[in-house]
Amino acid sequence: MINFEFYNPTRIIFGKDAILKLGRELSRYGNKVLVITGGGSAKRSGLLDHALRILKENNKQVWILDGIKPNPRLDSVYEGIKMCKTRQVELILAIGGGSVIDAAKAIAVGAATQHDIWDFYLRKLSVTKALPLGCMLTLAATGTEMNGNSVVTKWETREKNFISGSALFPKFSILDPTYTLTVPRDQTANGCVDMMVHVFEQYFSHTTDTPLQDRLCEGLMKTIIENALILAADPQDYTVRANILWCGTMALNELVGMGKKQDWATHIIEHELSAEYDIAHGAGLAILSPNWMAYVYKENKALFRQFAERVWDIQGNGKSEEEIILEGIRKTREFFVSIGAPATLEDAGIDESKISLMAARAVRFGPVGSMKKLGKEDVETILRNALV
Amino acid sequence: MINFEFYNPTRIIFGKDAILKLGRELSRYGNKVLVITGGGSAKRSGLLDHALRILKENNKQVWILDGIKPNPRLDSVYEGIKMCKTRQVELILAIGGGSVIDAAKAIAVGAATQHDIWDFYLRKLSVTKALPLGCMLTLAATGTEMNGNSVVTKWETREKNFISGSALFPKFSILDPTYTLTVPRDQTANGCVDMMVHVFEQYFSHTTDTPLQDRLCEGLMKTIIENALILAADPQDYTVRANILWCGTMALNELVGMGKKQDWATHIIEHELSAEYDIAHGAGLAILSPNWMAYVYKENKALFRQFAERVWDIQGNGKSEEEIILEGIRKTREFFVSIGAPATLEDAGIDESKISLMAARAVRFGPVGSMKKLGKEDVETILRNALV
Repeated sequence: MINFEFYNPTRIIFGKDAILKLGRELSRYGNKVLVITGGGSAKRSGLLDHALRILKENNKQVWILDGIKPNPRLDSVYEGIKMCKTRQVELILAIGGGSVIDAAKAIAVGAATQHDIWDFYLRKLSVTKALPLGCMLTLAATGTEMNGNSVVTKWETREKNFISGSALFPKFSILDPTYTLTVPRDQTANGCVDMMVHVFEQYFSHTTDTPLQDRLCEGLMKTIIENALILAADPQDYTVRANILWCGTMALNELVGMGKKQDWATHIIEHELSAEYDIAHGAGLAILSPNWMAYVYKENKALFRQFAERVWDIQGNGKSEEEIILEGIRKTREFFVSIGAPATLEDAGIDESKISLMAARAVRFGPVGSMKKLGKEDVETILRNALV
Repeated sequence: MINFEFYNPTRIIFGKDAILKLGRELSRYGNKVLVITGGGSAKRSGLLDHALRILKENNKQVWILDGIKPNPRLDSVYEGIKMCKTRQVELILAIGGGSVIDAAKAIAVGAATQHDIWDFYLRKLSVTKALPLGCMLTLAATGTEMNGNSVVTKWETREKNFISGSALFPKFSILDPTYTLTVPRDQTANGCVDMMVHVFEQYFSHTTDTPLQDRLCEGLMKTIIENALILAADPQDYTVRANILWCGTMALNELVGMGKKQDWATHIIEHELSAEYDIAHGAGLAILSPNWMAYVYKENKALFRQFAERVWDIQGNGKSEEEIILEGIRKTREFFVSIGAPATLEDAGIDESKISLMAARAVRFGPVGSMKKLGKEDVETILRNALV
């Protein structure tokens, strides 16, 4: 195990009718509230209206920024920052999925500084403060509801960058599985892939002697697999939605990977795919992660074998270590496909024309990953292997 | 899964030389610091001196309250509260094991109120504020370094009571496994029992459909078992001490049991044992928990079977469900004994003379437990079954 620090002050309010705690939370903050939402499902489901009613009952002065898109864009962030500064907003309330929350985090940071928010995403500046942020999550996926990360895309230059910092933790997040019951099949699948790959990024590592972290990650992976498969058949089951929702939060609240050197190459490479082609992040991860595994597993065969045996219950009888590992990787890909995620770049309508460009961009801050440090050529190979 | 709220703002600083972060943490608080310690191991190991040097380098004004005993006593708490009030202490720094930290929490609450601290433990008052508390942990066991609980004993009346509240979370906890290398075999074993039973209290439940919580608990239990067995043979292994230290924190930072109705009967009954006989809490739990299991397993056979199969790897072949469950309970007891914990009240030098009295006290706030609500007679039976 390596040394670590863990700090996560987000208050999680989980379960049916969790929204009834919103008023209590609002009482801790100032009166001027900016509500940020994607608009679509939060409006249709009545969730936005319900939240607005509670804001009104609590005598809050409310502005709304809606229309935040998946792979949230920098221009919306600028718009939100301007609203916060003009109105002297005291609390941001994000209602939606990971993209809405990530945009809200960017706005929260931008509203508390005189600097250009994009300079934080370019790693020229570190985040030290932000407006307080509350979240009402409508999609089980990114874990941003309980972590200090945000990913934003500057669409003109196809740059998808992230920031991290303890000022970015939401003050509270309301997680009611009911809100997620109507999430469409493809978004459900992409969310499950995203959380699964979050666990991969923390689990696959050169750090030895982390038996607790390994078992917690394996428990998460098994639970995601079992519940994602049920959801693919029955998306309306509250209990299963609840399990997946909690898995998504636990998969990236930074706890299960503490003490391991983490990887994150797959995520960085995927960010190039979704920045270039605007595909869903989870879809990109489903395509890339088995290819990443196949490219790097020789760096730590013992761990990839453990993954195959403990997560996929692959029995050793007569098989070589290599066969066991490859079966584990194959099962990972089959799982993603079985819940409705794509398997190849071709499935996502992506050809080879921009692979070299994306590989170059992926390593613009230096080599990526830690299981195996990947340079431009490595990334290019992984992307080519993912074509068909 | 049932609805839940999770909030845990303690900053964990984990690993070798974690003490080097103490100065940074101290800078966030006022200058008047009360150091609370048990005295023994923290002094012998040089840890107390090291902390005092850092306090001096940071120009803190320091007072010391030492001699806090296991099963910490109310009279020490009063002494600490008086010191805090007289000196207008701004930060409490607890250096020691769970008892030192629990006493420090009581002092932190008592210093921030005009009420008698014992009234909080008698449930006449709720905790709303406390002085800030930092911890340097020297024993893997109770999890108090990352939770909002404190247990204190009023020795004259043999009352061992607890309080809970978010004001009780330490601001930071420094966890360096090195400090735990010299913990004697019996204390190491008792600590491992304590964390194992913390998981039991959260795992054994009537709440259905909690697959993630179950798997996280099972992962914790398997890791505790594996590492406790190694430690019993080789107590000087840093890596294994690190694993057990992190298990102890994770076993009661309130995360793995979120969404399950928890039990805690075994703990409440044990508090009567240690209040009456001043035995180590972990020793009492080792004696009681297999007896509690044997008394209640019929309330949820499926879960006790899952425990036997997943935690103890008991194979079903040809055995009845009952046999599988009983084998799981037997293995639990054997594990505790194999690491050096007692199996019976007789082993701990306790006879039947006060069983009836302890049973009556255990239910003084009403029936205990939730797997099976236990009244006085139930508790008495469990205690009698634990005699030999």
